Amino acid sequence: MPNAVHVRHDRIQYGDVKLYAGTGCPELASNIAGYLRMPLCERDVIVFPNDNLFVQLHTSVRGQDCYVIQTTSAPVHRNLMELLIMLQTLRLDSAARITAVIPYLCYARSDKKDQPRVPITARLVADMIEVAGADRYITMDLHAGQIQGFFSIPGDVMTAFYILTDYLKKKLPVMKSPVVVTADLGFAKKARNFAQKLDTPLAFIEKRRVSNDSKAEALTFIGDVKDRDAIIVDDEINTGGSMVQAVNLVKSCGARNIYMVFVHPVLSDPASQILSALPVTEFIATDTIPIPAEKAAYFGDRLKILSVSRLLGEVIMRANEGRSVGALFNE
Amino acid sequence: MPNAVHVRHDRIQYGDVKLYAGTGCPELASNIAGYLRMPLCERDVIVFPNDNLFVQLHTSVRGQDCYVIQTTSAPVHRNLMELLIMLQTLRLDSAARITAVIPYLCYARSDKKDQPRVPITARLVADMIEVAGADRYITMDLHAGQIQGFFSIPGDVMTAFYILTDYLKKKLPVMKSPVVVTADLGFAKKARNFAQKLDTPLAFIEKRRVSNDSKAEALTFIGDVKDRDAIIVDDEINTGGSMVQAVNLVKSCGARNIYMVFVHPVLSDPASQILSALPVTEFIATDTIPIPAEKAAYFGDRLKILSVSRLLGEVIMRANEGRSVGALFNE
Amino acid sequence: MPNAVHVRHDRIQYGDVKLYAGTGCPELASNIAGYLRMPLCERDVIVFPNDNLFVQLHTSVRGQDCYVIQTTSAPVHRNLMELLIMLQTLRLDSAARITAVIPYLCYARSDKKDQPRVPITARLVADMIEVAGADRYITMDLHAGQIQGFFSIPGDVMTAFYILTDYLKKKLPVMKSPVVVTADLGFAKKARNFAQKLDTPLAFIEKRRVSNDSKAEALTFIGDVKDRDAIIVDDEINTGGSMVQAVNLVKSCGARNIYMVFVHPVLSDPASQILSALPVTEFIATDTIPIPAEKAAYFGDRLKILSVSRLLGEVIMRANEGRSVGALFNE
Amino acid sequence: MPNAVHVRHDRIQYGDVKLYAGTGCPELASNIAGYLRMPLCERDVIVFPNDNLFVQLHTSVRGQDCYVIQTTSAPVHRNLMELLIMLQTLRLDSAARITAVIPYLCYARSDKKDQPRVPITARLVADMIEVAGADRYITMDLHAGQIQGFFSIPGDVMTAFYILTDYLKKKLPVMKSPVVVTADLGFAKKARNFAQKLDTPLAFIEKRRVSNDSKAEALTFIGDVKDRDAIIVDDEINTGGSMVQAVNLVKSCGARNIYMVFVHPVLSDPASQILSALPVTEFIATDTIPIPAEKAAYFGDRLKILSVSRLLGEVIMRANEGRSVGALFNE
Amino acid sequence: MPNAVHVRHDRIQYGDVKLYAGTGCPELASNIAGYLRMPLCERDVIVFPNDNLFVQLHTSVRGQDCYVIQTTSAPVHRNLMELLIMLQTLRLDSAARITAVIPYLCYARSDKKDQPRVPITARLVADMIEVAGADRYITMDLHAGQIQGFFSIPGDVMTAFYILTDYLKKKLPVMKSPVVVTADLGFAKKARNFAQKLDTPLAFIEKRRVSNDSKAEALTFIGDVKDRDAIIVDDEINTGGSMVQAVNLVKSCGARNIYMVFVHPVLSDPASQILSALPVTEFIATDTIPIPAEKAAYFGDRLKILSVSRLLGEVIMRANEGRSVGALFNE
Amino acid sequence: MPNAVHVRHDRIQYGDVKLYAGTGCPELASNIAGYLRMPLCERDVIVFPNDNLFVQLHTSVRGQDCYVIQTTSAPVHRNLMELLIMLQTLRLDSAARITAVIPYLCYARSDKKDQPRVPITARLVADMIEVAGADRYITMDLHAGQIQGFFSIPGDVMTAFYILTDYLKKKLPVMKSPVVVTADLGFAKKARNFAQKLDTPLAFIEKRRVSNDSKAEALTFIGDVKDRDAIIVDDEINTGGSMVQAVNLVKSCGARNIYMVFVHPVLSDPASQILSALPVTEFIATDTIPIPAEKAAYFGDRLKILSVSRLLGEVIMRANEGRSVGALFNE
Repeated sequence: MPNAVHVRHDRIQYGDVKLYAGTGCPELASNIAGYLRMPLCERDVIVFPNDNLFVQLHTSVRGQDCYVIQTTSAPVHRNLMELLIMLQTLRLDSAARITAVIPYLCYARSDKKDQPRVPITARLVADMIEVAGADRYITMDLHAGQIQGFFSIPGDVMTAFYILTDYLKKKLPVMKSPVVVTADLGFAKKARNFAQKLDTPLAFIEKRRVSNDSKAEALTFIGDVKDRDAIIVDDEINTGGSMVQAVNLVKSCGARNIYMVFVHPVLSDPASQILSALPVTEFIATDTIPIPAEKAAYFGDRLKILSVSRLLGEVIMRANEGRSVGALFNE
Repeated sequence: MPNAVHVRHDRIQYGDVKLYAGTGCPELASNIAGYLRMPLCERDVIVFPNDNLFVQLHTSVRGQDCYVIQTTSAPVHRNLMELLIMLQTLRLDSAARITAVIPYLCYARSDKKDQPRVPITARLVADMIEVAGADRYITMDLHAGQIQGFFSIPGDVMTAFYILTDYLKKKLPVMKSPVVVTADLGFAKKARNFAQKLDTPLAFIEKRRVSNDSKAEALTFIGDVKDRDAIIVDDEINTGGSMVQAVNLVKSCGARNIYMVFVHPVLSDPASQILSALPVTEFIATDTIPIPAEKAAYFGDRLKILSVSRLLGEVIMRANEGRSVGALFNE
Repeated sequence: MPNAVHVRHDRIQYGDVKLYAGTGCPELASNIAGYLRMPLCERDVIVFPNDNLFVQLHTSVRGQDCYVIQTTSAPVHRNLMELLIMLQTLRLDSAARITAVIPYLCYARSDKKDQPRVPITARLVADMIEVAGADRYITMDLHAGQIQGFFSIPGDVMTAFYILTDYLKKKLPVMKSPVVVTADLGFAKKARNFAQKLDTPLAFIEKRRVSNDSKAEALTFIGDVKDRDAIIVDDEINTGGSMVQAVNLVKSCGARNIYMVFVHPVLSDPASQILSALPVTEFIATDTIPIPAEKAAYFGDRLKILSVSRLLGEVIMRANEGRSVGALFNE
Repeated sequence: MPNAVHVRHDRIQYGDVKLYAGTGCPELASNIAGYLRMPLCERDVIVFPNDNLFVQLHTSVRGQDCYVIQTTSAPVHRNLMELLIMLQTLRLDSAARITAVIPYLCYARSDKKDQPRVPITARLVADMIEVAGADRYITMDLHAGQIQGFFSIPGDVMTAFYILTDYLKKKLPVMKSPVVVTADLGFAKKARNFAQKLDTPLAFIEKRRVSNDSKAEALTFIGDVKDRDAIIVDDEINTGGSMVQAVNLVKSCGARNIYMVFVHPVLSDPASQILSALPVTEFIATDTIPIPAEKAAYFGDRLKILSVSRLLGEVIMRANEGRSVGALFNE
Repeated sequence: MPNAVHVRHDRIQYGDVKLYAGTGCPELASNIAGYLRMPLCERDVIVFPNDNLFVQLHTSVRGQDCYVIQTTSAPVHRNLMELLIMLQTLRLDSAARITAVIPYLCYARSDKKDQPRVPITARLVADMIEVAGADRYITMDLHAGQIQGFFSIPGDVMTAFYILTDYLKKKLPVMKSPVVVTADLGFAKKARNFAQKLDTPLAFIEKRRVSNDSKAEALTFIGDVKDRDAIIVDDEINTGGSMVQAVNLVKSCGARNIYMVFVHPVLSDPASQILSALPVTEFIATDTIPIPAEKAAYFGDRLKILSVSRLLGEVIMRANEGRSVGALFNE
Repeated sequence: MPNAVHVRHDRIQYGDVKLYAGTGCPELASNIAGYLRMPLCERDVIVFPNDNLFVQLHTSVRGQDCYVIQTTSAPVHRNLMELLIMLQTLRLDSAARITAVIPYLCYARSDKKDQPRVPITARLVADMIEVAGADRYITMDLHAGQIQGFFSIPGDVMTAFYILTDYLKKKLPVMKSPVVVTADLGFAKKARNFAQKLDTPLAFIEKRRVSNDSKAEALTFIGDVKDRDAIIVDDEINTGGSMVQAVNLVKSCGARNIYMVFVHPVLSDPASQILSALPVTEFIATDTIPIPAEKAAYFGDRLKILSVSRLLGEVIMRANEGRSVGALFNE
C-alpha cells in the first residue's frame, strides 16, 4: 500500500477561454473582453435574403472553453436563434465546454401556467439552449429565481443588486428620508432586500382589478412616502405603463424626489417617451440590454447606466479557472 | 377525393381509471375514491425489517389509466420513495398512463439557489418522479408556481384558494373591518388575491435581519390593522415560529380577532403546541396533509379542516375523460 | 386455452382532430380546414410590445389529436418560435398526440457541414421541434430527403411532384419538344423524375467557380435545348439570382418558350422583380409559402399557384384514422 | 358537482394486433400466428449483395399494435440487426405500440463485469432494442432475471418452466428415484425450483479451476445420484462441452438413466454430435431457437422439442387486450 | 507531414480530489480520508423540523473531481436522499466529475420481477443516482453482479472477497477440515469461489417451500460437514432468521466449530440478539455498514470487523489518476 | 479587481491517445498507428462458438483519449457489433473520450424514406454508435453529407477527394481530352467538383425506368465523350452491375480510354470478376475497405489503391491536440 502523499495539481483543467459574441449586445461583449484582456473571437454572422442566419467560426475551438455572449432582447427571436446556432456550431466543432452568457434572458415572465392552456415559454427557452449544446449558462437577475430549476445544466445567475445598491448608497446623503417602493408585489421580497441594504423603510403599491369583467385596475399605496424621496425598484421596465401610474400615485401621496431603479432596460416603445416625461429625478439601470441612442436621448442625463461587464468578465474568468463564483456576491 | 364528412368519435381514449393510494394520506385517498364512486385498488405495501419498502399490485394494470395518490409530508423520504416505487411498479406492469397525485409536494421551498453551493431539491424531486415513470402529475398550491416548469411532463396544479375564500366569505358578516395580512413577502401577490376576493384591504409584515452577523430579525407592520379583524394567510405552516411573532405584532398593532388561513398543515413539532396557545380565533387549513389526532387535540374546535377531496376527484375524472380542468377554476 | 376468435376492433384510437394554425400561412390553413370540413380551433396569438409572443388556447385539448399548421418562411424566427410555443402549449395541456404540419421547413439548406466550423441548422430546428413537444411532423419537399433522418420522431414528407407534373402534363400538347432542365446539380435526380414523368429529355446547367479566389461562376449547358421549350425545375426559388443566369443561358442556347417550376416560392427580395422581367412564359409554384399581393402583382397572370391544401388535409385525415399515407403517392 | 356514476368503458385502447416475423424463427412465428388465428403481416426482407439488409412493410401500420417475432440465435448479428431494422421501420411508419418478441435473447451471458475491462453486452443489446423503437419486449427464460433491469421499457419475461415440468411430471412414473442435478452453480436456485416442482432431491456438480494458471477444471459431485435417474437441468446448451463432463461424472457416481433438460437449444457446433453420443435417455428442449434438420438428425427420437408458441401467442393476446400476463404463470 | 514524435503527457486530467461524506458511515469515510491523507470537505447537512434535508458546501467545487461517500443502510430513504441531494449540489456547482461511493447499495435484492406486478427497485435507485448527477459510482459486493447493468454510467464494483479470504486463510491452521457452506443457492457460485480460494470442500443448504399454501420451509443439507468446521458465507445478513435455521441444521449434521462470514452487516433487529445466541465461534464482516455499539455489544469479541477503507481509498486514488482499478483485484 | 493578465495554458486537455483496432481493416489500422508512431493497444476479440463476440482490453483506459478504428464493410453486422462492443467496453472502463473511426460507414445508402414503410437504417446506425458510448466519430466520404446530421455527437467527415484528384492530376498529361462522367445523378454535384479540380468538362449518364411496371432501365448519355478519355467517378462500387452498363454506353459513344475512380471499394461479388473484364484502363480506389487478395487478383496491376491512413492519422492527432481539422482540407 502506498505511502505516497497525494499530490495536489493545479486546478486548470479546461482549455483556453474563447469569447464569442452574438450581435445582441456588442458593446457589453466588447467590454467584457476588455476586462479579460482578450479579444472576441472572429466569426461571421450573416443574414441571408431569406431571413436565415448563418454562422462560421474563423478558427477551430476543439477542446477550448467557449463562451457565447448574447443578450435576448428585441429582436428577441432572431437574437435567440443566433445564440442557438452559435452554440450548435461550437458543439459540432468539438468545443470542450460551452457556456451561454445571456445578460438578459427572454421570456422569463412566461414562467408558470397561471391561466389554463398557456405555455411556460421560459422552460421552452431553457430546453432550446440545452438542446443546442450549452453545457452551462450565465445570466443575470432572472424575473424569478426558480427559472434556474428549468435548466438541467448548471449555471450562474448573477445579480446587479450590489452594483445598484452601491450606486444608491452614494446618493443617500442627498436624499431626504428615502423609502424603497415596489409597484409589483411579486418583487416585494427583493424590494425588502434593497430597503435592508439601504437601511430605509419599505412601501408597496397594490394593484387590484376593479371587477372581474374589466381590465381597470385600482392602485393603493401601502406604507408611508409623504415628504420622502421614493426609490421605485423593479427587475425590468417594459412599456413603462404601470410605472406612469406608480409615479403618479407616489407623487399624490406626497413624495418628494423619485428615483427609478431597474436592472434590465427593456424599454419597449413607447416607454422612453412616456417615462422621460415623468417627474423622476434619475433613472438607474444596467447595460444587460443596449439602449439605442434615440431612446437614450429622451432621458438626457437623467439616465444612468451601470455596467455589468466587470461582473460578467469576472464570472467567466472564475468559471474557467474553477474558482468560486459565490465569492463574488460578498465583495 | 373523399366527400365523406369527418366523423367525430367520442373522446374516450384512455383505459379505466385505477386509483392507487400510498400510505401518506389514506383518508384523503379514500374520500377521493368515494367521490369517484370507485374503490381504491388493492396493493401490498410492506416495510421490511431492513427498512426497504416493497409493493405488489393485486391485479394487472395493463392499458389502464392509473393514479397514485400520495402526499409527501413527514416521513418525507419514506413517503416519497413509496410514491416512486409505486410509479415504477405501474410502469413495469405496462400501465397506459400514470399520474402522480401529490396533494402536498415536498421540498417545494428548495426551489432556487439563493445562496452559493446549495441544491434545488424541488427540481431533483421532479426529476425523480419523472424517472420513476409518471406521465403526468397533479398537485396543489405549490410554494412557487414556477415549480411547474421543473417538470418535463404535463401536470395540473390545483389551488385551494376558492375552497378557502368560499369559507371565509361566509365568515365575513361576523368579522369587523377585516384585513388580509401576509407575513411572507414572497406570498404578497397571493395575499393580494385573497384581499381582492374578500374585498378587504391588504397589509404586510416585513421581516429584516437586524445585522449581517446575527440571526435576529426585526418585524415591521406595513398597513393598517387597528381595531380590525386580521386574516393572516400563507401557503403552509411549518414550525409556526414566525407565526408567533406575526400574531404578537398584529395584536400589538391593535388587531381585534385573528384568523389564520393556510393550505398545507405541515405543523412540524412543536407547531401545534405553540400555535394553539396564540390568541387566534380560528385556524383554517385543508387536508392535503393529515393531522394526527394528538396534534389536532391541541386546537380543539378552533381548527377547521376543509377537504380538497372533491376537487382532486373531479380533476382525476376530467383528466381521464379528456375534459378541461381549467374550467374547475371558474366554479 | 381459449377458442375465442380474436376480435378486430376499429382502428380509431386517437382523439378528435384539432386543427390549430399559426400566423404563417393563414389561407392555406383555412383551406386545409375547409377540405376537412372542420373549423380551425380558436386560440390567441399575441405579440407583446417587448417582442415576446404569447399563446392561449380557447378550449381544452386533453386527449385530442392536435395538428399545428405553420409555415416557417420569413419572418423565419418569429414563425418558428410561434410554432414551438404552440407545440409546448398543447403538450402542457395534455394533448394525446401533437403533429407539427410545416408546409415549408426553414433552414433546410443548412443540412451538412460542407465547410469547417459551420452549423447544421436543420438538425437544430428538428431538435427544437422535438423538444417543444411534437410527436410527429408533416412537411413537404425537403431540400434533401435525408433531413427526415434528423428527426427522432416519425413524420410524413409529402411531395408536390404529382400536383406539379399533373399540371404540366396538361400543358404538354401546347409545348414544342419540351426538355426538363435543372440549374442545380443537387436537384439532378429529382429533375430526372420530372423528365421521366413527362417523358421528355433532360438537360443540365453546370455551374463552376472560375478560380479559387473569386466568386465568379461559369455556366455550361449540358444537353440539348435548341428549338425546344425548356421546363426549368427546382425545389425553391430564393432571390432568383441564379435563375436569371440560367434563363439567359437557356435562351442563348436556342430555347423557345421557358417554364419555371418550383415547389416553394420563397421569393426573397428582389426575386419577384427580377424574375418577372425574364422571358419566362409561366411561373408555376405551390402555396406552401404565401405570396404577398405586392409580390404576386409583378408576375400578373404568368404566375400559377397550385394548392397543396387537399394533399395536406388528406394526410391529416389519414394520420388521424391510422390509414396509409403512402397510398397518396400512387394516386 | 356531478352525481353521475363513473362509466366503465371497455379496455380496448390499442389498435389491431399486427404480427411481423423476422427470418430467425419462421416456424415458431407461424405457430404463434396460428394460435392467434391471424396471418403474419407481409413484409420484404432483402439481403443486398453488400450484406446490407432492407425491409419494407406491405401495408401501413399507423396506429396499430405491432409485434415483431425474431429470435437472436446464430447468425446472431444479422438476426439482431434485422430485428432492429424492423422495429425502426414500424416506428417510422407511426405504429401505435411496438413490442419486440424475442424468444431467445442473445448475449444474455455477457451480463456483468466479472473481469476488468470487459463489456456488458446484454445491456448494449437492451439499449439497441430501445433506441430502435421498441415500446415493450417479450422474451423467455433469461440467463439472469436481472437482465429485465437493463431495459427502461416494460417487458414480459416468460418461462418455459411449467411447460418443461409438466412434461417431466408425466415421465416421473417411469423414472427411478429421480434427482435433479445442476452443473452450473449459477443455475442452482432454478434447479431447486425444478426439484421442488417434481418433488425430487437436488444435487450439484461443482466446477473448480485446478490452479490459477491453467484452464484445467476439477469436477465434484455434491449430493446423491447412485442408482437414481438424473435430470440434468440448465437454461441453455451451447457447445455441450461441459455437459460431456457432467454426464460422465454423473454416470461414474452410479446414475441410472439420464435426462437432459434445457430451454434454449443453442447447440453450437459440435454440440449435436457430441451430445448425441452421450448415454442420455432423452434431450428435452423448446423451440425458442430452431434446430436445423441436420442437427436434429443426430439425436433421432431422443430429442423432444416442446413448443412455446401457445404461451407466446397468449401473452401477445393479453398484452393487446390489457389483461394480466402474470395469470399465465399459475395455469 | 510531421516528423514529430507524439509526446506522451501525464495522465492527470481531472481536477483535485474532493471527498465529501454523507452522514451514513462517518467512520468509514474518515478512514478513507485518512488513507488518502486528505481531509473530508466541509459541508452542512441540516435536517429541518419538517423532515426536509438541506445541504450546503463550504467551498466551491468547480472543476474538481468529487467523491461522495455515503452508505445506504437504514435509515435507508433518508440516507439515499442525502446522497442524491449532495450529488445534485455538486452538479449545480459545476463539479468536473462526480462519483457516488456507496459501500452498501440499498434495494439490491429488488433486482428482478420474480413475481408479477412488483418493482425492480434497484433499477429505480440506479436511475435516481444518475438523474441526480453522478458521473460514476463505486460500490461493493452487489447482491447480483448484474446490477452493474442497471447503470448507464460506468462504475467500479469492488469486492471484500480478498479481504475476507485473506483473514480466513490465517485462521485455517486452527480449523479442522473446514468446509464452506452456503445457505442461499443464489450465492452458490460465490461460495464456490470461497471454497476454491481456501481450498476446502463446498456444501449447500437447500431451502424448499413445504407446500404451495404455507410459508413453512424445509431445509436439507447437501454435502458433508460431519466433524468439520463450517464456514457459512453470504453477502449480507439481514434479520438473521434464516441463519438460525442454517446453524441449527449444520450443527445437527455434526459440524464442529462454525464461522459466519458476510460482507454487509445489515443486522436488522433482532438479528444481533438472535445471532449472538447461536453457537458460532466468530462472526466476520466488514464496515460497509456501521454497527451501533449497542448491537456490537451482543457479540462481544466474537465479532470481527474488517475495514474496506484502504480498498475504497485506493480505488478513489486510482480513479482520479486514471490508473487501473482492475489491478487491485490481483493484489 | 484583478490586474492579472489571463495566462494562456497549453491546449492539451485530453489524456493520452489510445488506438484500438477492430478486425475490419487491420492493415489500415496498422498504417494509421505507424503514421502516429504509436502501437495499437492490445485487446482480445474472441468469437465464441455461439457466434457471440467478446472483447477484453489488456490495460486500463481510464481518463484516456481512445480511438476505435473499425470499418463496417462485409461482414457488416459482425463488424458493426464489434465496433459497438468495443465502444461500450471503453465507456465502462471510464475512458475520458471515445472516438469511433469508421473509414467506411455501412448502410449510408439507407438514408431517407424514398418509398413508404422503409427504414432509415443510417440513422439507426448513428443511434447505435451513440448509445454504445462514442463521444465523437470520424468517417470518410459519406454517401450523403447530410448523414452528419443523423448524429447528435460531433464528428469529422473526411474526404479522399484531394487524394484522388492529386493522383489523377499526375495522370492528366497522358490522357486525351479527359471528361469526368457520373453514372449516378445523385453524385452530380461531387462529379462537378472533380471536373472543376481537374479542369475537364462534365458529362452524365441518365438512367430511367422504361415503364412503371418493369425493372428495365434505359440509359442516355448527356454531354460529349467522343474521342475523349472518360473518368467515371462515384463514391463506392458495389456489385458493379450499373458500371458495366455505364462503360458500355461510354464506349459506344466513342470514348477512348476509361478510368474508374471511387472511394470505397465495396466490390460485392461478382463485382471484381465483371469489372475486371471491362475495357477500363485503371481502377482507382482507397483502402477504406480492405480488398482480399483473391479479388485484387482479378484486376492485376490495373487496380490502384491510395491509402487514407496518413489522413486519418493526422485527424486523430489533431483531434487529440485540439487543433483544427478543417485545415487539412486545404493542404
